[in-house]
Amino acid sequence: MSPSTTAPQAPAFVMPVDLPKPPGLTWRVQSREPVGYDVNIVRGLLDPANPALARACGADGQHPTRCLVVVDDKVQALYGERVRAYLEAWHVESFWKVLPGDEEAKELESAVEVTEAMTAMGLLRRTEKIVAIGGGVVLDVAGFAASLYRRGVPYVRVPTTLLGQIDAGIGVKTGVNHGTHKNRLGTYYAPETALIDPEFLTTVDPRHIVNGLAEIIKMALVKDAALFELLEATVAGTGPQSLAAGGPVATEVISRAIAGMLDELEPNLWEQVLERSVDYGHTFSPSLELRADPPLLHGEAVAVDMAICVALAHRRGLLSAEDADRALRLMHTAGLPLAHPVFTAELLEEALRDAVKHRDGRQRMPLTEGIGQVRFVNDLTREELAGALEFVQVRAAALGGREDAELLAVAS
Amino acid sequence: MSPSTTAPQAPAFVMPVDLPKPPGLTWRVQSREPVGYDVNIVRGLLDPANPALARACGADGQHPTRCLVVVDDKVQALYGERVRAYLEAWHVESFWKVLPGDEEAKELESAVEVTEAMTAMGLLRRTEKIVAIGGGVVLDVAGFAASLYRRGVPYVRVPTTLLGQIDAGIGVKTGVNHGTHKNRLGTYYAPETALIDPEFLTTVDPRHIVNGLAEIIKMALVKDAALFELLEATVAGTGPQSLAAGGPVATEVISRAIAGMLDELEPNLWEQVLERSVDYGHTFSPSLELRADPPLLHGEAVAVDMAICVALAHRRGLLSAEDADRALRLMHTAGLPLAHPVFTAELLEEALRDAVKHRDGRQRMPLTEGIGQVRFVNDLTREELAGALEFVQVRAAALGGREDAELLAVAS
Repeated sequence: MSPSTTAPQAPAFVMPVDLPKPPGLTWRVQSREPVGYDVNIVRGLLDPANPALARACGADGQHPTRCLVVVDDKVQALYGERVRAYLEAWHVESFWKVLPGDEEAKELESAVEVTEAMTAMGLLRRTEKIVAIGGGVVLDVAGFAASLYRRGVPYVRVPTTLLGQIDAGIGVKTGVNHGTHKNRLGTYYAPETALIDPEFLTTVDPRHIVNGLAEIIKMALVKDAALFELLEATVAGTGPQSLAAGGPVATEVISRAIAGMLDELEPNLWEQVLERSVDYGHTFSPSLELRADPPLLHGEAVAVDMAICVALAHRRGLLSAEDADRALRLMHTAGLPLAHPVFTAELLEEALRDAVKHRDGRQRMPLTEGIGQVRFVNDLTREELAGALEFVQVRAAALGGREDAELLAVAS
Repeated sequence: MSPSTTAPQAPAFVMPVDLPKPPGLTWRVQSREPVGYDVNIVRGLLDPANPALARACGADGQHPTRCLVVVDDKVQALYGERVRAYLEAWHVESFWKVLPGDEEAKELESAVEVTEAMTAMGLLRRTEKIVAIGGGVVLDVAGFAASLYRRGVPYVRVPTTLLGQIDAGIGVKTGVNHGTHKNRLGTYYAPETALIDPEFLTTVDPRHIVNGLAEIIKMALVKDAALFELLEATVAGTGPQSLAAGGPVATEVISRAIAGMLDELEPNLWEQVLERSVDYGHTFSPSLELRADPPLLHGEAVAVDMAICVALAHRRGLLSAEDADRALRLMHTAGLPLAHPVFTAELLEEALRDAVKHRDGRQRMPLTEGIGQVRFVNDLTREELAGALEFVQVRAAALGGREDAELLAVAS
């Protein structure tokens, strides 16, 4: 046989098709990517006697391993020494990348720098981990970098803020801002493990604790009436020290918030279902975060949004006057704002239009149905938004002055 | 009840746990992300009478839709007009991003520019598609951009090179080079659809057709003896025109190559299994691609690697002398190189060490076991590499000069 002189022709000798995907003109590729990760509450994470962080880094205390630690400058200053000592005790050689922790550092360039640190250390992508310790910016940037480096390397999340510990730090979203857009570039990329040590909260300032409480209250409102009652009884005492100290209340609050969050996330990790109860308080707040000057923290903007939602639900008869009062009062007692001068009926309407775009053409607006449950509505009107705004403004003014049932009654 | 004066305390009133993920100290989040996409061979893709591309863009010819077309400058010059006319005929408003098609453009900045084009047009992320038409660079960059923009928007792949149509363009890998590293940053991100029109091959130069043939020969060697025989009989006639013309042989060759590739990819889309028969010919070739000057095309480097693998298998008794000859002769007849002065035993050894790193500590080296099957070995020695190199050099010299059975016999 002389192949080079054989003209192309239909072959007479092709063997029977033996490929599981037979030759043809159309194929469908189908698979399911298994994703799994652990979320653990671990006190004393940086105590060398505690093996949790070492295990997450793949260390056994016998064989040397390596990891890349990504922290923000604040964590570096407060905990850098202890992290180093801990890892040394476990024979983990650590390489470090320190990022600024502020929102301006949440940009593509930071993520690229983290990947360059991986290249510089010659990270073995299957076994050596990225360990991100810090607030939302560091976790989002380091997670993004981990997802991109050679199409993904394992990473461990150690959120140090309350918001991180009960919300952003235990999910699978990564990302950076780009241009004028928040989280414009990002990925869904699960960590291997998220380790939650409430002791980090001792060094979080009270305003940022309140910031995290907003998301805990959200979780209570949308799916956990027991958590709501617990917060009503204790929220005034949930400062940094008491949360960090780990009494039964603090543990119950953090643990219920995490459980609720994971319960919502797990069946919808990639946000394919657009009716998300965790979007509660996140419809109008992005506009507020963008415009408030001086700027609001995320949770503060979420609280102002939730107050509108409480009013909307009440005015639709989904929430009794008493429960609406309880919700607003809880947020107020926690130290959260209920209203903001930037919010006008026009802005609310515009923000809702934006949300409709992101939610594929429908409002899909979660509203509380009683405390601890949500229903989704798609027919909010401008008039309702204006009415809710007015309702909240009156209540907020009343609560802002003194907690006076008579004053509150004026708004009903 | 006056919450603000209640001291934190263990609550007596917490309702029974009613969360599917109960409060606690440890949770495991587990899910599986469904991924699916179609690969279709569609001739006459740019003929307005053919609805395939329009459907992939979500168009029905009645309602206006929009998409972002990402092409390289060559595709723009050769097919831009036809793509525009096609999309207009289907009432698809198209926005365009033209990239250079050369390897230098395969960088993060190009991907960022594609995402900026999405922002500029106000892409609706759930419904409006990215359509990437071109060679590997454009598909990889556009796919990377699609995976990052707001954590992922749908995209359609239209590979226009033979390599793209049977290999890179029908998988889920995206990426860009960074620093001195190929594909250093990237994602696994499935398109919605890959549309394969062999008519694009009429404008591919013969050297790039041969480049694609290397991967087809690989597929034949590792899992499709029938394809191998078909190629033996016809490879000399598989130039751009005959592949594009779509006779039964061309269709069978392309279709079997795609079927084999998808069959390997589907159960291992995220490359969690490190024994990959599609890695055949991809162990030593990265070093060669890096060092060859003048540069080699990917498929050319793969061919030189495959020749070594053929020799290794033969010397281990996994491949008969006759089959080894058939394999080398097929590559040679296709117009592929079998040897390259850059390859030394030292370089092969170094390349294998690199591969071991990437394959989590073992060689996991696919070798043919007969033609059409692989086995993985982990114990290749330096002596074997040197012996295989010598074997190939002699054969290559013989084939390079004249196809002389006597000369070939010298090397046995």
